[in-house]
Amino acid sequence: MPEQISPQSATLRRWQDDFGWQGVDRLAYKQDATAPFLNVSRQTLFSHADLAGELRYFEVAAGGHTTLERHGHVHGVMVLRGHGRCLVGTQVDDIGELDLVTIPAWTWHQFRAATDAPLGFLCLVDSVRDRPVLPTPEDVAALRAHPQVAAFLES
Amino acid sequence: MPEQISPQSATLRRWQDDFGWQGVDRLAYKQDATAPFLNVSRQTLFSHADLAGELRYFEVAAGGHTTLERHGHVHGVMVLRGHGRCLVGTQVDDIGELDLVTIPAWTWHQFRAATDAPLGFLCLVDSVRDRPVLPTPEDVAALRAHPQVAAFLES
Repeated sequence: MPEQISPQSATLRRWQDDFGWQGVDRLAYKQDATAPFLNVSRQTLFSHADLAGELRYFEVAAGGHTTLERHGHVHGVMVLRGHGRCLVGTQVDDIGELDLVTIPAWTWHQFRAATDAPLGFLCLVDSVRDRPVLPTPEDVAALRAHPQVAAFLES
Repeated sequence: MPEQISPQSATLRRWQDDFGWQGVDRLAYKQDATAPFLNVSRQTLFSHADLAGELRYFEVAAGGHTTLERHGHVHGVMVLRGHGRCLVGTQVDDIGELDLVTIPAWTWHQFRAATDAPLGFLCLVDSVRDRPVLPTPEDVAALRAHPQVAAFLES
C-alpha cells in the first residue's frame, strides 16, 4: 500500500532541546497581528490529511499570554512545560505540568505564563474549525465584573 | 450559551502521581482478550461530542508491549514517559520522551517498553475509526523476513 509521507508526517520526529521537534517549524502564534497576545510561539505536531484532529504545541514565555478569545470549536489542552494560569469562562485556575484543560464551545479563554517560567501546552482541535472571535469592550466589562477575572486580566 | 460538561470534559482535570488524572479511569488496554499484548493500560484524556479527534494515554509497563496490528486510521503518537522502541512498517526505532511517531494507514505497528522503564505515550486518533486487524501467520512471516523486525518481535 503506497503512502505519501510529507515532512510533517515522517514516521519519527525526535524531540530536541528547548521544546522543538525535528522537521517542525516554530511559528508566530497568530498569522496576523490584529489580536493582542504576548510572547507566544506555535508548532504543529500532527496535522494530516487522514486525521480529523490536529495537535499543536504552544509556548508562552514567562510573563506572556495568549489572546483572550472564544469560538465554536472545542480545545483539549495538556500542559507540557512550566506553569501558569488559565481563564475558562469566569473560572481562573493555576495549571502545571500534565494538567488537562477543556475549553467548551463559545467560552472565553486565555492562558498566562507565570512570571518566572514559560507555559508550554499541547492543544487538540478539529482540523476544520471556525475562527476565533475577540471580545467587544462590553464583553470585557462583563468579564471584569467578576473580581477573579479582573485580577487575572490585569496580572 | 448552555454547555453540558460531562465528568470527562470538566474544565480542569489535574495530573496526579504515577501518570493518572482526576476523573479519568485507568482501563485495560483492550476490551477483549483476543489480541496479544502485555502489561498495557489506557486512559482517555479527551473524548468529546464536539471534537473529531480523541487523545488517549497508553502506558506499557517495563518489558511489556502493545498488540502488533494495523488499520485504516492514522495514529499520532507522542512519548510522555520512559522509553522503548517502536515498529512502524518494517522500521524499528528507539523512542524516548516527547518524540513524535506517525503511524500511517494500514501500516503494521507495535510499541515495546524497555526492560527497565515504562513506555507511556499520547495517541491522537479520529473519534470515528475502523477496528484494528491482526496479522495472519503469513503476515508475520513476511515481517520476520526483515532481520530488524524479527529481532524486535523476539525481544
